[in-house]
Amino acid sequence: MMQTKLLLTVSIILNIVFTIRILYYSSGTWDPTWTNKAAAEAETAASVSCSGHGRAYVDGLGVLDGQEPPCECNNCYTGKDCSVLLKDCPVDANSGDPLFLEPFWMREAESSAVLVSGWHRMSYSYQDKTFLSRELEKVIRKLHIVVGNAVTDNRFVIFGCGSTQLLAAAVHALSLTNSSVSSPARLLTSIPYYAMYKDQAEFFDSEHLKFEGDASAWKQSERNDNMTQVIEIVTSPNNPDGKLKRAVLNGPNVKTIHDHAYYWPYFSAITHPVDEDLSLFSLSKTTGHAGSRFGWGLVKDKAVYEKMNRYIRLTSMGVSKDTQLHVLKLLKVMVSDGGGEIFHFGYGTMKKRWETLNKIFSMSTRFSLQTIKPEYCYYFKKVKDFTPSYAWVKCERPEDTNCYEIFRAAKITGREGNVFGSDERFVRLSLIRSQDDFDHLIAMLKKLVSQEDVPSENFHVI
Amino acid sequence: MMQTKLLLTVSIILNIVFTIRILYYSSGTWDPTWTNKAAAEAETAASVSCSGHGRAYVDGLGVLDGQEPPCECNNCYTGKDCSVLLKDCPVDANSGDPLFLEPFWMREAESSAVLVSGWHRMSYSYQDKTFLSRELEKVIRKLHIVVGNAVTDNRFVIFGCGSTQLLAAAVHALSLTNSSVSSPARLLTSIPYYAMYKDQAEFFDSEHLKFEGDASAWKQSERNDNMTQVIEIVTSPNNPDGKLKRAVLNGPNVKTIHDHAYYWPYFSAITHPVDEDLSLFSLSKTTGHAGSRFGWGLVKDKAVYEKMNRYIRLTSMGVSKDTQLHVLKLLKVMVSDGGGEIFHFGYGTMKKRWETLNKIFSMSTRFSLQTIKPEYCYYFKKVKDFTPSYAWVKCERPEDTNCYEIFRAAKITGREGNVFGSDERFVRLSLIRSQDDFDHLIAMLKKLVSQEDVPSENFHVI
Repeated sequence: MMQTKLLLTVSIILNIVFTIRILYYSSGTWDPTWTNKAAAEAETAASVSCSGHGRAYVDGLGVLDGQEPPCECNNCYTGKDCSVLLKDCPVDANSGDPLFLEPFWMREAESSAVLVSGWHRMSYSYQDKTFLSRELEKVIRKLHIVVGNAVTDNRFVIFGCGSTQLLAAAVHALSLTNSSVSSPARLLTSIPYYAMYKDQAEFFDSEHLKFEGDASAWKQSERNDNMTQVIEIVTSPNNPDGKLKRAVLNGPNVKTIHDHAYYWPYFSAITHPVDEDLSLFSLSKTTGHAGSRFGWGLVKDKAVYEKMNRYIRLTSMGVSKDTQLHVLKLLKVMVSDGGGEIFHFGYGTMKKRWETLNKIFSMSTRFSLQTIKPEYCYYFKKVKDFTPSYAWVKCERPEDTNCYEIFRAAKITGREGNVFGSDERFVRLSLIRSQDDFDHLIAMLKKLVSQEDVPSENFHVI
Repeated sequence: MMQTKLLLTVSIILNIVFTIRILYYSSGTWDPTWTNKAAAEAETAASVSCSGHGRAYVDGLGVLDGQEPPCECNNCYTGKDCSVLLKDCPVDANSGDPLFLEPFWMREAESSAVLVSGWHRMSYSYQDKTFLSRELEKVIRKLHIVVGNAVTDNRFVIFGCGSTQLLAAAVHALSLTNSSVSSPARLLTSIPYYAMYKDQAEFFDSEHLKFEGDASAWKQSERNDNMTQVIEIVTSPNNPDGKLKRAVLNGPNVKTIHDHAYYWPYFSAITHPVDEDLSLFSLSKTTGHAGSRFGWGLVKDKAVYEKMNRYIRLTSMGVSKDTQLHVLKLLKVMVSDGGGEIFHFGYGTMKKRWETLNKIFSMSTRFSLQTIKPEYCYYFKKVKDFTPSYAWVKCERPEDTNCYEIFRAAKITGREGNVFGSDERFVRLSLIRSQDDFDHLIAMLKKLVSQEDVPSENFHVI
């Protein structure tokens, strides 16, 4: 009898606990309703195993037909779960796909996820009638303060569909500044340069602007008459070679665009906060989200800012509100702890990659890497190793005139030196891609360098 | 004793039920983990009460500082919960903000929500190396089949940051087609026209293109020499007047861009599937998501498609992957039930709005509305009322030379007739905005029309 009573008491207590639990969970702060399905879809995609050599996305092929999102394998991996490594597969070291930061965002899954409702900001503009989220502007200013890489006081902030769009907007705005002058403005930069500058200028083929190439050559040429309107693009750190750069030209006829896409602690020492009239930044090299097509500019002059704004309005009516929401979330994570986490993670990855790379190239006499002396970084508060995004490789042997082809024959696809206005003796290798791509690159480089002792076939023939 | 035993049995059964319930819920198909926070944030924002006269968004002002997303009130409403109607507040009937579809997406909250992970498609391109989601392309083709408004066979599909970007891309691509011809191509359209055509052409001020205005005037002018390269933009249904249009010009020197942004069953009878060389569509007028900046084009000619693609690549490197994901989800909802739901909802709203509007204007002799005969709609399989997005209002009194100002004095902000290349005697009133804006517009219109019997002040003076 005592036993039965005890059992009953325990059982009733358990029932009370269960009931409280149910009541608590269903009347708590949040009982998921309409977000359930979207969350479940995202978790399902995230849980698809791709052997660590691929990813499944919620918008993968076949999802419309109700299929599970399939694995999208990294380069050189194949199979349903990306477990098969292809033999003799050429390594892709071409584009600057910033996948080296992907593991960070996977780790920050919870804080970086965002749920977009079906009725999220359907209007053309925000409540203040602009195309620009004020919260996003705020977090961008905060990020620059945290990193100490740019002065944002007395600057207008402008958003674009990638810094690509902002670059076109800036060049357009500055080329219009003196519409009374009949001869076109000249677009100049320093060799080696990011090909987009030339490609845009030549494609738009405006009567107001001509691409002229190297700024130093222009400075020394007769055509430098201090009258012709000139726009110089200063890329610092430079793409492809990672060097910190200063403007070559100055004078009342010179306007300068500072492309600071790579001025983040992953790639460069932060030597000072830049304080320019017009500087551009890219989300791609800030958080690693190249696919989101988001960039921003800091603009001092109101007239230039308004011309750029008009360009953005007439070419896309601003940037997608979905994207602005996503970017806000990502940058919020970056600034939440003083940016420490992601910069330590990203720099750590780059440092390791450069150590591996330097070791290989130190064994080579055939190939050389760009060098820069380490500088004091005010962000990390120490002298920082040189860890740029790309290896700018020179083929040193006289007969290796086309470096890109030498690497291509060794199954390494880089980017040709002449794309950057430079010599074919150079090739750019991207170091910011996925770990798989980097590991693969290293394996192929080792093989290539190890063959240096063996006389080349050409040598045999001679 | 029997009672105690019975109680014990019941209690134990309850215990078992509770235990099963807990086991079931925690080992079920899905136990939310990393998506929890994002989902909770979205639900919190959605649950903020704004008295039905505003909305709170997850990226509202102050959220960075940990505040709850604030209400963003509809025009003329104010207060913390948007419950206060401002007195003498001018109604906004200017822009084509397609908020009339917002209630549909709120109803479809579950099926239209999407959760974007922090590592969603960070790469520049999709796996097939393009900037274009194949699933999204598939659902766009399906949508056109479901609605029957466009032939997509043998067409390339191209995406842009709004049809705005595609329009610039198309004009650019077509103006380049004959680079050997020295005189610039002429851009023509029909009055009244969407101002963006003129604004873009004049802003880019290309040596390859000049905006020339009315196509009919050109056709009859001496300059129509059948040699000069001509690009005609045909907007059908037309913005601002909603009329179905055909090309005015033809000949080997004529290229045509068909802007079909408004060719959806909300606004127009679907009389046939359009089957053109180059047609453009806009998400803004398809789902109502103007803020997402997404448009697409259907292009027959490969060379034109490639030129447009190059334009998109050099101005933005494609469209944000976050946006493409969101659009995929929205269009999936649209096609899931043959598009019936949203088109019935949207057309129903427009029909009701036009009935109200027609009633008011039928009492006026001072103002007249555009008229078009109802046509058979192959989508709804019946003759459909004329329900265009905008009222194209004419001021009939001789002294009312500036119609925009007449309405502005009556606290109704429309868009000036001369913006559309037309007479100042016309004003465009947007009918696709939020229900609050429409209700407010109706109230003000009633007041304006009811004053017609009273002689105007001008009349008094004379």
